[in-house]
Amino acid sequence: MKAVAVYPGKPHSIHLREIEPPQLDSIPGGRGVLVRSLEIGVDATDREINEALYGNAPTGFDYLVLGHESFGIVEAVGPNVKDLQPGDYVSCTVRRPGGSIYDQIGRNDITSEETYYERGINLRHGFLTERWVDDCEFMVKVPKQLKHLGVLSEPASVCAKAIEQAYLAQQRLQVWKPEVAYVMGSGQIGLLSTMMLRLKGLEVYTVARSKKAGNKKAEIAEAYGATYVSTAETPLDQLVKQTGKPQLIVEATGSSQLAFQAMEVLSHNGALVWTSITGGQGTATVPSDKINLEWVLGNKLLVGSVNGNRRHFELGIQALAHGELAFPGVTEKLLTTRVDGLENYAELIRRLVEDKEAIKVYLRVTSV
Amino acid sequence: MKAVAVYPGKPHSIHLREIEPPQLDSIPGGRGVLVRSLEIGVDATDREINEALYGNAPTGFDYLVLGHESFGIVEAVGPNVKDLQPGDYVSCTVRRPGGSIYDQIGRNDITSEETYYERGINLRHGFLTERWVDDCEFMVKVPKQLKHLGVLSEPASVCAKAIEQAYLAQQRLQVWKPEVAYVMGSGQIGLLSTMMLRLKGLEVYTVARSKKAGNKKAEIAEAYGATYVSTAETPLDQLVKQTGKPQLIVEATGSSQLAFQAMEVLSHNGALVWTSITGGQGTATVPSDKINLEWVLGNKLLVGSVNGNRRHFELGIQALAHGELAFPGVTEKLLTTRVDGLENYAELIRRLVEDKEAIKVYLRVTSV
Repeated sequence: MKAVAVYPGKPHSIHLREIEPPQLDSIPGGRGVLVRSLEIGVDATDREINEALYGNAPTGFDYLVLGHESFGIVEAVGPNVKDLQPGDYVSCTVRRPGGSIYDQIGRNDITSEETYYERGINLRHGFLTERWVDDCEFMVKVPKQLKHLGVLSEPASVCAKAIEQAYLAQQRLQVWKPEVAYVMGSGQIGLLSTMMLRLKGLEVYTVARSKKAGNKKAEIAEAYGATYVSTAETPLDQLVKQTGKPQLIVEATGSSQLAFQAMEVLSHNGALVWTSITGGQGTATVPSDKINLEWVLGNKLLVGSVNGNRRHFELGIQALAHGELAFPGVTEKLLTTRVDGLENYAELIRRLVEDKEAIKVYLRVTSV
Repeated sequence: MKAVAVYPGKPHSIHLREIEPPQLDSIPGGRGVLVRSLEIGVDATDREINEALYGNAPTGFDYLVLGHESFGIVEAVGPNVKDLQPGDYVSCTVRRPGGSIYDQIGRNDITSEETYYERGINLRHGFLTERWVDDCEFMVKVPKQLKHLGVLSEPASVCAKAIEQAYLAQQRLQVWKPEVAYVMGSGQIGLLSTMMLRLKGLEVYTVARSKKAGNKKAEIAEAYGATYVSTAETPLDQLVKQTGKPQLIVEATGSSQLAFQAMEVLSHNGALVWTSITGGQGTATVPSDKINLEWVLGNKLLVGSVNGNRRHFELGIQALAHGELAFPGVTEKLLTTRVDGLENYAELIRRLVEDKEAIKVYLRVTSV
């Protein structure tokens, strides 16, 4: 069976290889679900793993099958799987449990262990292959009517978790009803976060570098009812003068410099969520006295948020469905860049790295 | 009536002046409480206001009476004050309500307005005077048996709120039971936080620059059952190797560089609380890619915390009382540096600025 893999630690080692097909009964307790890949998304994480910035092979392997953004169709289920049957569409969560208390209560997304297990990222093979198998616990159903957006399940879960983390942490304030939000970055996380915050009724500014004219990302943000702002046209401090300081910021630029810069524009009692994985060695010089002073006087909060567990996938899929009704036909515009066939992995990674206009780059493994 | 004041914006303008005595009936609704000052603490905030780094006079005044750490004895109460009577010992909260929803629900400590009102700091006169008056809402009773620590009520409220904010925000994790905490800084906030975290059963490392031998701050930290660590003897990264990464950090060094450095040692699912007011223009260069990556992967959280409202004063006073039973006679060792009489304001500020061994510098206005 074909799979797209890398040799972790070796830059630009992406390649096609033969691997053993997965077995349904490799999952204990009759809880296995065997899935045929339909569409597998790639993102900056895959790019950075291929650049050897992070990522590890499972024990006993020298390669790591890539792909953590999964969408497929169930082919077979074990005898103790209740909620899924062949023909169902599913996405699969990314993290697998370790041994901490969090893992034991089903919150492997917040394991307190330093070592984490993520399919397609760290110590577990990913989904960029013909078939995969996993425990039904990690498999989340995608309604048939949403199958055209199924490949966005994982990114949507990331956004849903990030936003939920902010709201949960802000319960410390007794009342928190943010009105103005900035979403920094207009990639898939930025745009899906824009949609979700618009669905909550916030006034959303989607802030990115590229100019607005003829910009597909800007068109999508505005189709969600947000305002797209190019920092090339309106610097961040000027935007703040126009909108007031935002009470909520979702940072998804992939730039750690901007992640820290976002600290400077957050309002009193505001929440900033960092979602970008930045694998480099970059540094930033920050006005530390000023940020610290304002964060203390203003009771401000920052929370980092990583990929979610099954409940976050459910929330993400719900938001995708809600978005289809509120903004019909908009979300599919994120699906800019499809490559067909595992053997075209080189084209897949080329589009991911080089195509600056691409929003979602994904591989169609099999036709739906 | 004598008061110690500054001209905000004019460095080193601290002076003694005559002001009008406060009137009980200046507080509406018969809710006034007139208090005679016993002991008023000073801290880095007072020093920085005298250095004109921040602070503003109330409208209609060119001076600001200093002092936000209050302790006094009630002399008279209005007809609608139920819980206080002459002879009661009290401390008084610092912030006064603005108009936001938070102010309306009694959470003026988290007002969402940019302008805040703080007695002795911003737009409201402070307590460094013979008598003061305020609404009974802002007056918190100190038990007679705790009157020797009454001047620590405000600092204790700051610590109680800071720790509570971390625990409240971490409810997002469903389970959070930190075991190892670092308290950075060994001033009054660092030491009182050390005590409160020890009362919660945590393994506490009180981390500061000064060497351990012959260091009074180290003695107090260890009398609370914490481990004092001098970064001059054990660099922070070496300490982390010994203890594991802390799940909770209270940052109270007054150095914004260290506030950001604390971000680098926090554990997965950890909470960092910033409590230092840093009024300068300092900058810090941070390993932004690394911090951002680790915060996202590790679901880490930062929260700024400022002075508290009456509930935090109540929590602080409870912790001081609990500390008296658990660690008898230890907390009073914080009261290193007493100056007698408002007319000795110059000595007060000199000790505050120059005496590096001082922990709590305070003015005895009247004998208890």
